[in-house]
Amino acid sequence: MGPRFRGDDSIRAVGMIVLFTDFGLQGPYTGQMKAVLQQMAPGISIIDLFADAPAGNPKASAYLLAAYAQWFAAGTTFLCVVDPGVGGTRPPVVVEADERWYVGPGNGLFELIARHAAKTRSWDIDLQPQRLSASFHGRDLFAPVAAMLARGEPPPGRPRKDDADRRRDWPDDLAEIVYVDHFGNAMTGLRAATLAPNAKLAAAGRVLERARTFGDRPPGAAFWYENSNGLAEIAVNGGRADRDLGLAIGTPAEIVV
Amino acid sequence: MGPRFRGDDSIRAVGMIVLFTDFGLQGPYTGQMKAVLQQMAPGISIIDLFADAPAGNPKASAYLLAAYAQWFAAGTTFLCVVDPGVGGTRPPVVVEADERWYVGPGNGLFELIARHAAKTRSWDIDLQPQRLSASFHGRDLFAPVAAMLARGEPPPGRPRKDDADRRRDWPDDLAEIVYVDHFGNAMTGLRAATLAPNAKLAAAGRVLERARTFGDRPPGAAFWYENSNGLAEIAVNGGRADRDLGLAIGTPAEIVV
Amino acid sequence: MGPRFRGDDSIRAVGMIVLFTDFGLQGPYTGQMKAVLQQMAPGISIIDLFADAPAGNPKASAYLLAAYAQWFAAGTTFLCVVDPGVGGTRPPVVVEADERWYVGPGNGLFELIARHAAKTRSWDIDLQPQRLSASFHGRDLFAPVAAMLARGEPPPGRPRKDDADRRRDWPDDLAEIVYVDHFGNAMTGLRAATLAPNAKLAAAGRVLERARTFGDRPPGAAFWYENSNGLAEIAVNGGRADRDLGLAIGTPAEIVV
Repeated sequence: MGPRFRGDDSIRAVGMIVLFTDFGLQGPYTGQMKAVLQQMAPGISIIDLFADAPAGNPKASAYLLAAYAQWFAAGTTFLCVVDPGVGGTRPPVVVEADERWYVGPGNGLFELIARHAAKTRSWDIDLQPQRLSASFHGRDLFAPVAAMLARGEPPPGRPRKDDADRRRDWPDDLAEIVYVDHFGNAMTGLRAATLAPNAKLAAAGRVLERARTFGDRPPGAAFWYENSNGLAEIAVNGGRADRDLGLAIGTPAEIVV
Repeated sequence: MGPRFRGDDSIRAVGMIVLFTDFGLQGPYTGQMKAVLQQMAPGISIIDLFADAPAGNPKASAYLLAAYAQWFAAGTTFLCVVDPGVGGTRPPVVVEADERWYVGPGNGLFELIARHAAKTRSWDIDLQPQRLSASFHGRDLFAPVAAMLARGEPPPGRPRKDDADRRRDWPDDLAEIVYVDHFGNAMTGLRAATLAPNAKLAAAGRVLERARTFGDRPPGAAFWYENSNGLAEIAVNGGRADRDLGLAIGTPAEIVV
Repeated sequence: MGPRFRGDDSIRAVGMIVLFTDFGLQGPYTGQMKAVLQQMAPGISIIDLFADAPAGNPKASAYLLAAYAQWFAAGTTFLCVVDPGVGGTRPPVVVEADERWYVGPGNGLFELIARHAAKTRSWDIDLQPQRLSASFHGRDLFAPVAAMLARGEPPPGRPRKDDADRRRDWPDDLAEIVYVDHFGNAMTGLRAATLAPNAKLAAAGRVLERARTFGDRPPGAAFWYENSNGLAEIAVNGGRADRDLGLAIGTPAEIVV
């Protein structure tokens, strides 16, 4: 029996700002965004969730974001930049979904967030910063909007009238690898809870069975399991699934029942 | 003569939480742990010490951690996750050693900390979070405990009665490379203060002499020196010791007197 | 028309401390510097701008720093460590330039900052910390001084009488690659505002025209553009300029008019 304990599974992060980008770990981009956030929303926590979201790939990113965002509490603001069309015509948007807030490009990145939500609204951002670089809207446009939302201000924009930037043709779950982590584990865009208990995954010519965790399989064995954020993830006990099996972002991972 | 100055060599980091993991730099793991910490222990500083501790290697990590932890002040809480057995049977523990606090897996990671301490106590964690994933105890179990300790609360658990998870057979100093840094310098698990002034190190077929610092040797010369945290470290002036000499984690580095 | 909005282009970061180093992303170095800063200057924001400045290359770093520093507000303190001569004789300095403060080695790193400033002053640091490691002045000397400056204290040192560490022979703009970012884009040391509107850049055997942004060019096309911090940057739409063109730090990029 442990002591009274609350908190780990309902992170009440009011005002917390979470970063989800493909900016990479190095270089000045994340730092400059944080400088804007700390200046405009002082005292509000900033969390680096992903700086290595699938690069230039809003579709794979959308499934990854949807799986991880739900772990955070109502009131969290997500600043999301996977934006191969920066400087082009994709709209800048704000999405509210189940009391969490999302700021970023309207290129499908929030499609699964919106689709899974019980309640969702969206806005076209019409903030006009005094200086807007052609290539860094994360710093010049999205970060100021995220700071405003985290401070509790309303979205600076007009409610969206159409849903021209929705991607209704995308599936509810994506039968592909969407992320490979530091340990070589390969996350799919499939929510494990939607799979039958005995479902197998076929990937890179292999058919993989489900395990509860690594220790359930002998060293060197490949398997899939429900990861700590609910995605079906392919792993090799004591090995690297990416190298050992030949998996990368985009590799199909089909359900076999 | 400089002005009055105190502070750089006695970091009074009451409440500071220091992260020591092998999670790697990318991905969501460190960010999710920090979200828990900031939620449960708001206002307490979090320091990323190592996110690239020797992967899956609690033994090498134990020597690295012991060398770096002593630089921090009494009152610091260390959240340490090098945990190849996650989901298995290794116990989750809290260790107090010389007024610093350590939370993580009882797999030897704290062996050298405990052995070098003047005074140490340990607890078996019996916190039972409402949601405990099979693969991410860093977020679901260890981070909540670290937050409680940093807030000044007692360890949520029972004092350890045995020391079944001690590693008394490990040496006091490890004559191997335990870490290679960004510059290619290779840290050993040997405390420089335990070596004779004229001690040499034999590694990868070379015998290396001691230098005070890089500038004491000609460009291209290999040597060892006492690094800024007291470990014997092998370096090449203007080069990379890892590549130039063929050193990696686990390479023996024997003392020659 | 957007709502009233101020702030994105005048970041009033009083007390903010910005890190500019070549320490790399991994390892304990940045974390230990931050522990000193948070201990000595609690409550002051710390921004990671570059941890991957040109390694051991104060000259290339000087042009990069000058371009990025001007984006930050008066009152910002920059803790800058690109210091191949640590442990040698280069002087530790403080520079004030247009009300921003810089701390680091006097090895040319602040040459362009000083040269571009309307008003500049400098000091020789004479702080004598109780413990000064031979190899980590960033932690033991520069971080304490940065914390003091960020707290509003005067520089701990004497005004410089000579300018022996200036690099007056370095050009105002450097016609070379000074940084390659995560996307493979290659920044030059040339300020785009100094180039004619129709200026071309010759690099790695190619002559490149100017574009406003990526979308202005067909996929696969190479070009240069003014990046979000005013530097001329070479890019390939949908590709990587570093790989596709063969660019690295130090590659010449000459102006062709």
